[in-house]
Amino acid sequence: MEKYPLVVLPVDDKDLEKKLSVALDYGIDMVELRIDQFSDFGEDYVLEKAKLVKDYNLGIIATVRSKEEGGIFIPDEERLKIFEAVAGISDILDIELTSESINKKVIEIAKDEGKLSLVSYHDFDKTPDEDFIQSVIDKAVSLGADIVKFAFKVNSYEDVSRILCISGKNRDKKIVAIGMGELGRITRVAGFFFGSVLTYTYIGKSFAPGQIEAKKLMEELKFYGLRS
Amino acid sequence: MEKYPLVVLPVDDKDLEKKLSVALDYGIDMVELRIDQFSDFGEDYVLEKAKLVKDYNLGIIATVRSKEEGGIFIPDEERLKIFEAVAGISDILDIELTSESINKKVIEIAKDEGKLSLVSYHDFDKTPDEDFIQSVIDKAVSLGADIVKFAFKVNSYEDVSRILCISGKNRDKKIVAIGMGELGRITRVAGFFFGSVLTYTYIGKSFAPGQIEAKKLMEELKFYGLRS
Repeated sequence: MEKYPLVVLPVDDKDLEKKLSVALDYGIDMVELRIDQFSDFGEDYVLEKAKLVKDYNLGIIATVRSKEEGGIFIPDEERLKIFEAVAGISDILDIELTSESINKKVIEIAKDEGKLSLVSYHDFDKTPDEDFIQSVIDKAVSLGADIVKFAFKVNSYEDVSRILCISGKNRDKKIVAIGMGELGRITRVAGFFFGSVLTYTYIGKSFAPGQIEAKKLMEELKFYGLRS
Repeated sequence: MEKYPLVVLPVDDKDLEKKLSVALDYGIDMVELRIDQFSDFGEDYVLEKAKLVKDYNLGIIATVRSKEEGGIFIPDEERLKIFEAVAGISDILDIELTSESINKKVIEIAKDEGKLSLVSYHDFDKTPDEDFIQSVIDKAVSLGADIVKFAFKVNSYEDVSRILCISGKNRDKKIVAIGMGELGRITRVAGFFFGSVLTYTYIGKSFAPGQIEAKKLMEELKFYGLRS
């Protein structure tokens, strides 16, 4: 995690090798394995895909997104088993702040394996007020999160500035600040100026509204002096 | 000033008609007449150039930049006469906060003509701390400025976030927040999300470090949902 800003490509298991090859060409740093979007959650299958990512020398964020925050329903016990299986090969484990019955355990698994935990929070409808966003950060940090990610639907210019400035106020922590939707697109690039450490992109199919396609995103990051 | 964000093209008197024609094609809103960069400061000559701008239906910001803030030395008395001459045909008069012997008079001239005043402050070396930037805003407002513009050399990511967030905190005023230099380039686009009301661009020769060329700037503003 020394080299900021890092660009992350979320992927499912479809056309994975092809995407990894393009990702490497573009200079993408990490892949987010959206395991909840895989056609098979079996340990062997998931590990096989993770190994493929490692063959391309890309970092791995393991994510089994809950239904409440944009994924699909998988029982918590099963999600926990998936995290246990992939922790060794992953660099970061991403668990939702609202997954209260397992988030502490996932953070522990990451710690035990010498990996980083990322505690995430999503709202696909709105951007909450500053106090609420700060409380998300504080709760995640108190759980032991190494990285705190928040992604909010942006409905106004003010929403964008609120997301970015609260990120800037928390520079002492590792924050990922995302404004979702077309109007939030600027946060995918400008976030780094406010201490945000990761940005998510796509090749082909996007997993989130307002993401910038990988080739264009790399161009934008270069244009604004964020990547060489 | 209803239609935000407004894109401003600073120009001198060289190749003016050609530039105005391109500006109109690109959808640029206003021209900043950098009268201090003209080959002739005579009233008739300056008015002739200003009329040319109006023939293209573009707004006018009249600027006679002081030597201290990036222009050339013109005695204050002469600068005042230039402002008096162009106030009627201009939309905005730009005067430096540090031009203490004439800035109140320029603001009065603008008011008397039913035009807007813009009080500007530049630092080509650094971005000051938050208190200093706020004091620039407060002083300009207390003088009677309709618009407050500050442009600071950006030397770090933190400088960018400080410039933008202080703009966001002063949304109740009309602010123009600029980070100069390559690293400040993002402010030329992202500023609008923080309530900044104008952005400056160039065609051919740039007047300030980190400006984005007009065609590219319009594309960027569209890409980030700021212009249709």
